[in-house]
Amino acid sequence: MEKAAEIVIVGAGIGGVRAAQEFAGKPGVHVTLIDRNNYQLFPPLLYQVSTATLATGEIAFPVREFFRDCDNVDFCLGDVTGFDTKGKAVLTKDRCIPYDALIIATGSTTNFFGNENVAKHAFPMKTMQEALDIRNQLIRCLELADQESDPVRRKELLTFVCVGGGPTGVEEAGAISELIYKSMRRDYHHLDFSEVDIKILEGSPRLLAMMPEKLSEDTANLLRKKKVDVRLQTIVTDYDGHTLTLKSGEKIQAATVIWAAGVKAQPVVAALDADYDRGGRIIVNKDLSVKGLPHVYAIGDSASFVPEPGARPLATVAPVAMKQGIRCAQNILAKLEGCEPETFVYKDMGAMATIGRSSAVLATGKLQMKGFLAWSAWLWVHLIRLAGTYANVSVALKWVLNYFNNARLGRIIVER
Amino acid sequence: MEKAAEIVIVGAGIGGVRAAQEFAGKPGVHVTLIDRNNYQLFPPLLYQVSTATLATGEIAFPVREFFRDCDNVDFCLGDVTGFDTKGKAVLTKDRCIPYDALIIATGSTTNFFGNENVAKHAFPMKTMQEALDIRNQLIRCLELADQESDPVRRKELLTFVCVGGGPTGVEEAGAISELIYKSMRRDYHHLDFSEVDIKILEGSPRLLAMMPEKLSEDTANLLRKKKVDVRLQTIVTDYDGHTLTLKSGEKIQAATVIWAAGVKAQPVVAALDADYDRGGRIIVNKDLSVKGLPHVYAIGDSASFVPEPGARPLATVAPVAMKQGIRCAQNILAKLEGCEPETFVYKDMGAMATIGRSSAVLATGKLQMKGFLAWSAWLWVHLIRLAGTYANVSVALKWVLNYFNNARLGRIIVER
Repeated sequence: MEKAAEIVIVGAGIGGVRAAQEFAGKPGVHVTLIDRNNYQLFPPLLYQVSTATLATGEIAFPVREFFRDCDNVDFCLGDVTGFDTKGKAVLTKDRCIPYDALIIATGSTTNFFGNENVAKHAFPMKTMQEALDIRNQLIRCLELADQESDPVRRKELLTFVCVGGGPTGVEEAGAISELIYKSMRRDYHHLDFSEVDIKILEGSPRLLAMMPEKLSEDTANLLRKKKVDVRLQTIVTDYDGHTLTLKSGEKIQAATVIWAAGVKAQPVVAALDADYDRGGRIIVNKDLSVKGLPHVYAIGDSASFVPEPGARPLATVAPVAMKQGIRCAQNILAKLEGCEPETFVYKDMGAMATIGRSSAVLATGKLQMKGFLAWSAWLWVHLIRLAGTYANVSVALKWVLNYFNNARLGRIIVER
Repeated sequence: MEKAAEIVIVGAGIGGVRAAQEFAGKPGVHVTLIDRNNYQLFPPLLYQVSTATLATGEIAFPVREFFRDCDNVDFCLGDVTGFDTKGKAVLTKDRCIPYDALIIATGSTTNFFGNENVAKHAFPMKTMQEALDIRNQLIRCLELADQESDPVRRKELLTFVCVGGGPTGVEEAGAISELIYKSMRRDYHHLDFSEVDIKILEGSPRLLAMMPEKLSEDTANLLRKKKVDVRLQTIVTDYDGHTLTLKSGEKIQAATVIWAAGVKAQPVVAALDADYDRGGRIIVNKDLSVKGLPHVYAIGDSASFVPEPGARPLATVAPVAMKQGIRCAQNILAKLEGCEPETFVYKDMGAMATIGRSSAVLATGKLQMKGFLAWSAWLWVHLIRLAGTYANVSVALKWVLNYFNNARLGRIIVER
């Protein structure tokens, strides 16, 4: 029997798992899927964990559960430290895992654009632990404010700033507004909620830049209705944990700054010695292989894929990662069979973002929608994409409870 | 208008919350309920969090949610550091909270009986974070074993020891057996599960000492059926994180030791200058007041209540805490109205413990039961006692899923 081709996939996110699924059960290939976490995270709902609507287990699916019945896909818990592209091996702290084909699917991390003060004091929201840190911080600030007699410090504790007007910032700002005004307001007998100040700061002239301009305006108005102070063309230059400094010189006192202003590729991909874009993403060929590195592929947020000369690279969103996972795996299988790999073709299905309960904006092709119908569409799309039947049932149940009762039963602080 | 009497309750556990509920809405009293956590924990189900069946939010209820509509009960998040019994005030790091009557309901913590090595290396299971630490450890050990080529180290990683044959140790050992043999066995394609070794060590001659002897034997047999090695009259003297040493001189290699061999009162109660029993619990009068400290009461795991001269103090279990909370509050209200306080009378409803799925032991009065019926009773009793409708629905759903499908969807490692 011929030895199976060894496929190593680094990263068990949306793209990496989808690629592994494509190889599952196929003869002649064996997959090692490596991740530093033993679960696949569903990042689009991370903001609901951070605002106490969903539990960790509802947006994280054990990787091994995907491949229980697939003997040719093995999982390896580990932190990749480098790559030996000549010897064709992936390196972890204490192992060296050889490959015939390698897929980089490590996803992205928060980009503070080199601002160390901001990196030190602001809250990023890309991992499960970071979402829990934000949840603890939001609740702790209200508890501390409840005990604070100094009005200046109390105002600082009650000021929550989201930096970045993309979907993450918009959804987080809307969810914080609902957590505080709808759920937690009833919890505190003495706190004056008119002192609460939720802000969203965006550097460009509009929110949700990927949306049609009309929907960007609608989004800003919907947030304002939820008492969120929307500040456009506003750039942050510094933050020391108490004072946020804007480019205009204005200073805002805030105990909580959530940084959703940018992402970049995971730093480990720099160890590949490939070509990178400004966000540290690996520039890939039409078939998703890495220029100059035969046998190495990159997908999802690790890859910079330019559909046609002069065009912008594809966005770092879940559908791109998923479809690149499939194409990439099929190209590797094709090559193993001596066939030609195919060009990755992406059909953009549009974009959507939710702004709290009952409202969302959605743009797909020529269709633009906002309000309850867009929100229902958002719910369904996210529920269907979420892995695992239990999570589907449980998340649906929580959304129903939250819809009718503003229930946020996760508003507990658990920390070391 | 006369000033309301200030009642301070330290500890928002089962006893403390129940006492506060007794005061809620009553004229002439104002309650400050202090806890270092913003949630009430339901300890009887902690072992299910530690073994990935339940989520944190399902056994923790936000304290403020209990008292949303009770203007005379305020919550204060804080760590009590001491008591000024002469000036009648409770001290936290930065506050001094005066009281007219004080209820100590701080519960218990793990008792390592002065063994510092064990305290450093074994896993206690009294708090939410400790339960999550155990969950992370159980999963991590299997992941590491899956990558370990040294058979000695692999065996150590796959040996799980519960020390203490009370309900916590018995339930934890049974749940670990089911987590590993029923749920996780399917996850690993290469790991040899015959190398797994789960042990329960008990110093006395039988498990569940509070049960009739016949049920203790049944419990041991049920655990043995679940491949748990039951070792009675076995005393631990040392543990260094790898090697567990027994009094007999025998040594057991184990990466995971869970310590459920004893509890003691929270250390802060020692600051009261009262009389204490060997477990550090405050010796209380018949009406739950503290000897020599008028206006101070102790309940639940903080109190040592001896029903009649020569009898053993009441057990540190949830029903005692709950009923003492009620009696204590009523006695304080009676005194405020110039009436006599009443003696606390406890009717023991018996004891129960579950040994994995579908089996439990139960003893109440003359009735003894084991098997499926006892297990159903256990489920209902615990479901009803759990606070919050959502938690009830969600926990019931998970138990059903787990019953039919061995589902353990919480088996993810989330840590800093």
